[in-house]
Amino acid sequence: MNVNIFLFEDFETLDAFGPIEILGKIDTYKLKYYSLNGGIIMSTQGTSIITEKVETATKGGILVIPGGKGTRTLVNDSQLLQALKEAAELSNYCLSVCTGSALLAKTGLLDNKKATSNKKAFDWVASVNSSVNWIRSARWVVDGKYYTSSGVSAGIDMTLGFIKDRFGEQEAKDIANHIEYIWNEDCSKDVFAKEG
Amino acid sequence: MNVNIFLFEDFETLDAFGPIEILGKIDTYKLKYYSLNGGIIMSTQGTSIITEKVETATKGGILVIPGGKGTRTLVNDSQLLQALKEAAELSNYCLSVCTGSALLAKTGLLDNKKATSNKKAFDWVASVNSSVNWIRSARWVVDGKYYTSSGVSAGIDMTLGFIKDRFGEQEAKDIANHIEYIWNEDCSKDVFAKEG
Repeated sequence: MNVNIFLFEDFETLDAFGPIEILGKIDTYKLKYYSLNGGIIMSTQGTSIITEKVETATKGGILVIPGGKGTRTLVNDSQLLQALKEAAELSNYCLSVCTGSALLAKTGLLDNKKATSNKKAFDWVASVNSSVNWIRSARWVVDGKYYTSSGVSAGIDMTLGFIKDRFGEQEAKDIANHIEYIWNEDCSKDVFAKEG
Repeated sequence: MNVNIFLFEDFETLDAFGPIEILGKIDTYKLKYYSLNGGIIMSTQGTSIITEKVETATKGGILVIPGGKGTRTLVNDSQLLQALKEAAELSNYCLSVCTGSALLAKTGLLDNKKATSNKKAFDWVASVNSSVNWIRSARWVVDGKYYTSSGVSAGIDMTLGFIKDRFGEQEAKDIANHIEYIWNEDCSKDVFAKEG
């Protein structure tokens, strides 16, 4: 199964590379890096990453959408949103981190679905589409094929939750142990929600 | 101050991008990506990153060395080790994650210094240079300008510890809170040490 990571200018580095680290531990997952037009994409932390054009991505698989500063303007970019919508519709599973859920919400694909986002930007994300059932206190939220997480590091916890749902709890724990990560495995426990 | 990230083929993605996420939150830090010969470097998780030649790096600053599968052969690459040694000697601070400390140990710069590494590979790392005072149970270890951490995720904790040492505890906590990361702030508490 392909893991298609959808990047854009000014994405938050760890939003993408937390889930990538976890998903990369599954031998049958093949990680591929995409963007709207392909070419070099730079994160907010100055990492220049080589991507392919998203329309060349294989159908199916797992779509990963990071958040970050870039989302603030991209929620108004109809071309990007259309490409994201098509990629998300074609995916078997769709995982967003932080304000990545703002982009996904703007496509309409989260309408009437439960979703979350990071706490520092929650009010803005929720304002993007009020038809989404936004969950303010959650480390991550699952609704059908859509997994949305809170800020940055929560993406690591969500992706371990995704691995648990696909391969069982032991596999998730083995990966967490391998990367010496103390997994916050209760998706409803959100210590940052009260600080938003 | 420059943050010079030293990459090589088959580095572990999160080893680099955990610290990068944290260090990128300091406005006065400028993040730059280097490798022995410059050009495109691919992580074990298939991320293609554009780098510059390490000999062009500015003197001083913070050197970041990830670990990963690539280190297993690179401990025998005298050209890479020489370049790493020069970069580390020129740095004000030097932070390694996971088996990155094996490379650093092989340069001789950790001789008679305390250091750690990840638990799954600890015996191998320790065998690379027995003149290092290897600490088996530690989330991370500081000795002078050298910070070495345990596996993958421990690099995030270590880098927050580094921020605390430079800017105070509140700054480290503010960054952890901003990225919704539950910081394991006690460097001596290592729940993975017993599982190695």
